Amino acid sequence: MAPKRLVCFLAVAAALATTCHGWGAGAGDVVSSSAAALSFVDRLRQMMIPAAVGDGDYCDSWRVGVEANNVRGWTAAPRKCDNYVENYMRGHHYRRDSKVVVDEAAAYAEAAVLSGDPAADANATWVFDVDETALSHVKFYKKHGFGYHRTDEPAFMEWLIAGRASALPNTVTLYKKLLLLGVKIVFLSDRPDTPELRNATATNLIKEGFDCWDELILRSESSTATGSVVEYKSGERKKLEEEKGMVIIGNIGDQWSDLLGSPEGRRTFKLPNPAYYIDNYKRAGTAVRAAVAITASSSSSSS
Amino acid sequence: MAPKRLVCFLAVAAALATTCHGWGAGAGDVVSSSAAALSFVDRLRQMMIPAAVGDGDYCDSWRVGVEANNVRGWTAAPRKCDNYVENYMRGHHYRRDSKVVVDEAAAYAEAAVLSGDPAADANATWVFDVDETALSHVKFYKKHGFGYHRTDEPAFMEWLIAGRASALPNTVTLYKKLLLLGVKIVFLSDRPDTPELRNATATNLIKEGFDCWDELILRSESSTATGSVVEYKSGERKKLEEEKGMVIIGNIGDQWSDLLGSPEGRRTFKLPNPAYYIDNYKRAGTAVRAAVAITASSSSSSS
Repeated sequence: MAPKRLVCFLAVAAALATTCHGWGAGAGDVVSSSAAALSFVDRLRQMMIPAAVGDGDYCDSWRVGVEANNVRGWTAAPRKCDNYVENYMRGHHYRRDSKVVVDEAAAYAEAAVLSGDPAADANATWVFDVDETALSHVKFYKKHGFGYHRTDEPAFMEWLIAGRASALPNTVTLYKKLLLLGVKIVFLSDRPDTPELRNATATNLIKEGFDCWDELILRSESSTATGSVVEYKSGERKKLEEEKGMVIIGNIGDQWSDLLGSPEGRRTFKLPNPAYYIDNYKRAGTAVRAAVAITASSSSSSS
Repeated sequence: MAPKRLVCFLAVAAALATTCHGWGAGAGDVVSSSAAALSFVDRLRQMMIPAAVGDGDYCDSWRVGVEANNVRGWTAAPRKCDNYVENYMRGHHYRRDSKVVVDEAAAYAEAAVLSGDPAADANATWVFDVDETALSHVKFYKKHGFGYHRTDEPAFMEWLIAGRASALPNTVTLYKKLLLLGVKIVFLSDRPDTPELRNATATNLIKEGFDCWDELILRSESSTATGSVVEYKSGERKKLEEEKGMVIIGNIGDQWSDLLGSPEGRRTFKLPNPAYYIDNYKRAGTAVRAAVAITASSSSSSS
């Protein structure tokens, strides 16, 4: 019998010819990608700058408020927390918070798949958000500041199209575990579905170890025209279940808007993100789409 | 025109003759109850024991995982986190995390009430959970240990019936603010609705500054017999909206099972609680009810 991940391979091959790339050291290995290790500068920061300085105590509580979906609708972290957010995201704190989430998700997935529930076997599917879930923007923030409002300017879109984001700490580990368990993988992102960005996203994912998937869903023009992020994402999940027969056993994202709205998935996992907030109920994507247009226009005029 | 809180007073007076007690220093004052100040021993602990020692880093991330509803279904905090949980709950950390939640809730309530939405005016209602939301169990844990599994033994029920719980830090502030805004107050608890426990709960709430409410809902025998905590609580919220015309603008609790299940309330707020977890989807109350029976039986046999 063909191994389950071959099913995945074939499905992906049909959808995107270049998707499945070398299994490298083996899907089951705990990934120790370059992203998993702190840079020398970040290690130095950890030694020099304590996690909580000045307003750190307040910022620590503010961050927990964000994670528990108490603090909503903010456009940027409080100004006094800029340094806190930078220290948090560049250092061990972010990584260990993420690790707890991912460990919990992996344990749950294993139990779900081994439970003997047929629905959780052949059609078991896991939905991953892309930005700050599979791929990290920390490199971008290092250049542009951790208080940068990501949808404000074309710089962010240029960076996405450059495809140089690193894998998010720990997420590759969960991804590899799920592949080994035979779980189908769907990436569901609010990134606009332009040929340029689809290619950049796929290439970046593959380069960072997410080298196989069943679906890579980006937001098409028509779906951008209607509804909030919650409506868009829950609508796509509904299609996966109703039209493709998938059973979404897990759903992981860094925003509550990734996780709310029926069908949420049998269980949801919230990765930390104190850098930006996407409103659960407002329509998003407009600024990003405008940025794509600007970027595309400037690329073509300069070519 | 009578002030709005008089409406509340009259409704409560009809429901429970002893409910509305002295407005004290005035409903609008920021409450500085005895519970808001740390005891001498707790202050000393704060100075002597850093927030994170030994496994503190892991426990800190574990706690954030709990708050964001990633870590579920646990019966007690990991053994190695016992000290962490005690330090967290006895000290400033718990209080400042709660304060961020309550500040956010108060700002939201003010904006909602002042928005001009008629539904959010005359019928605006706020649902409070009781245990670890209005009233704290920290005093109990000081005596029985912070790893105590609260539904295991009659000791917990005896303690509830003694009615010596303190107000939870910050929650009284939110409560008083809501009264000033003319918002109706509902306490919705999973405590069993026995005459003894109803009386103890009401008396304890009043003593701690929660001296007026529109509804105090405890779990009746019939509702205990069916469904999970989520079913019970969402069912009661539905009745409040459909039968009493209330508009639940806010809902605050320390458990995700307080906050999930339609109608959740227009906005929900999760207070921290790393001491125990109530499963969202399992039926609860059985152990507590058994404890009530044992307690009642031993009280009557000793009298």
